[in-house]
Amino acid sequence: MTTKQRVLLLGATGETGSSILNGLQESGNFDVEVLVRPASVKKPSVQKLQEQGVKIWSIDLDNSTDLTSALTGIDILISAIGPHDLLQQKKLLQTAKNAGVKRIVPCAFITVAPPQGAMLLRDQKEEIYNAIKFLGIPYTVIDVGYWYQISFPSLPSGKVDYATLLPKNVVHGDGTAPNLLIDLRDIGLFVARILCDDRTLNRYVYSFGEVLSENDIYRIVEELSGEKVESTRVSTESIEEAVEKAKAALTLDQEDPMKRIGLYKAQYEYSKYVRQDNTPDYANYLGYLNAQQLYPDFKPRGFREYFTEVMAGTARKVYDS
Amino acid sequence: MTTKQRVLLLGATGETGSSILNGLQESGNFDVEVLVRPASVKKPSVQKLQEQGVKIWSIDLDNSTDLTSALTGIDILISAIGPHDLLQQKKLLQTAKNAGVKRIVPCAFITVAPPQGAMLLRDQKEEIYNAIKFLGIPYTVIDVGYWYQISFPSLPSGKVDYATLLPKNVVHGDGTAPNLLIDLRDIGLFVARILCDDRTLNRYVYSFGEVLSENDIYRIVEELSGEKVESTRVSTESIEEAVEKAKAALTLDQEDPMKRIGLYKAQYEYSKYVRQDNTPDYANYLGYLNAQQLYPDFKPRGFREYFTEVMAGTARKVYDS
Repeated sequence: MTTKQRVLLLGATGETGSSILNGLQESGNFDVEVLVRPASVKKPSVQKLQEQGVKIWSIDLDNSTDLTSALTGIDILISAIGPHDLLQQKKLLQTAKNAGVKRIVPCAFITVAPPQGAMLLRDQKEEIYNAIKFLGIPYTVIDVGYWYQISFPSLPSGKVDYATLLPKNVVHGDGTAPNLLIDLRDIGLFVARILCDDRTLNRYVYSFGEVLSENDIYRIVEELSGEKVESTRVSTESIEEAVEKAKAALTLDQEDPMKRIGLYKAQYEYSKYVRQDNTPDYANYLGYLNAQQLYPDFKPRGFREYFTEVMAGTARKVYDS
Repeated sequence: MTTKQRVLLLGATGETGSSILNGLQESGNFDVEVLVRPASVKKPSVQKLQEQGVKIWSIDLDNSTDLTSALTGIDILISAIGPHDLLQQKKLLQTAKNAGVKRIVPCAFITVAPPQGAMLLRDQKEEIYNAIKFLGIPYTVIDVGYWYQISFPSLPSGKVDYATLLPKNVVHGDGTAPNLLIDLRDIGLFVARILCDDRTLNRYVYSFGEVLSENDIYRIVEELSGEKVESTRVSTESIEEAVEKAKAALTLDQEDPMKRIGLYKAQYEYSKYVRQDNTPDYANYLGYLNAQQLYPDFKPRGFREYFTEVMAGTARKVYDS
């Protein structure tokens, strides 16, 4: 009998964190405990985990004694912390190292992008990766592309609006930029495999379901729905201008999370559609391992399969607690 | 008959650049041209290259038309630019990409160290590596450890002072920290192999002759010389204090190159002897390939062999033009 790996998961109630928790539990190879900040412990989502019997550590990240208790005996520390709190991860690293954590999975879980200069969100993650390397802690960076769940257009019939974040159809440039895409629910299934694999130690790994352009997505959506999907075209220049505007807005008000989200969104579009970073080629160039090649037995959900669920009315809208 | 690869080398008259030029020429696999700034073209060292028939491009790095001429048809751009001019490399990157350069070798050629936070010199190199990755240009980063030529103690007899930069014997901590060391002359021989090898594309590679501690070095030196070598011990705390002092001094006078060199020197000692970064283990952790494993047929010079030359009076003092 193999001993299960003990995992401490931060950010378990977010979209990515939930997928990871489910994936690890489903695999049966891990004992997962969850780290939440005291302010979050009474949240329904945390209470629900507690009811399911998940061990919850309610800890202030500035309290290194409590952190040490939570991290002692932990094999793997996974962070799926929110985009506004990325730098908070620094508080965990030295304690995790001292406690002998065998692998840290910092909060990556985004599209493939250059380490510096294209996306503020990625730049902040780089700060954490560098802090991990400075300390020499074994790590794995796992990126996942962009979610199917926020990559489909709405239909004239309004049939899929229940599952849509922003019912506005936009196609960027000529619509041909290829992008790594994934079903949010598959992230955890990939993570469970990656964390049972020594080949992924001290490496970057990209996980994905399919590589599709916006034109591909529209074609599939029209085919499955039988509806003609209209869209607004956005030029490369407009995308670049939107980035500059969002940067200027954030400069004026650095502490406003909405300004920050505005820049993240504009830079995602710049990176995905103008630079075309979020591709297997660029990931390979950057030295990532390809999770589909590592685990050929695992068949991630295709976009067609996902959108069939959306059409059937059984999909779940993300960020909808 | 294989076509030779066309190389453009920046910094060819420095210590590292000279080793690279010699190594590439000796291998017979490259046509090497040299890029110098107009201010340097009349230097005796550049004149000497010209007399040897090396093609010299005298170009202002701000002149992108001239840079384009020099880079057109170049397969490999190598930079061995000096430590004060590292960020100047940014001026080359877009032009090199546009010209279709197949591989950039940015100025690395130092000890293995974390990408951020331990050595200002390394931090600046990281800025260039990130700029290369931002542009997606094929690259190879080649680090080399620390040179034998500046790693041996002086002898009571004064016999080896002719080849010594600083005739002062210091041992750091307990003298047991292992370090990757290399004969300066072997750098170019490694580079020539690395650049004929597709396995090193978009990778970091570390080259070295031997891994030795200061205690190892002193033992070999005493054995070969028959002299008893005295030394001053420097504590870990003193090394850390020296870094803080050097940082403070540079903060007061950011433009003073001597202040900068002072910090580089203090941080080298911190990284090599306190953090113990410059080792095969840490290089492997950081994802480097090991050049000794890539090229088992190539036998780099050992430290014993090098110091025998020093004892025989046939070594050359570095930075001594």
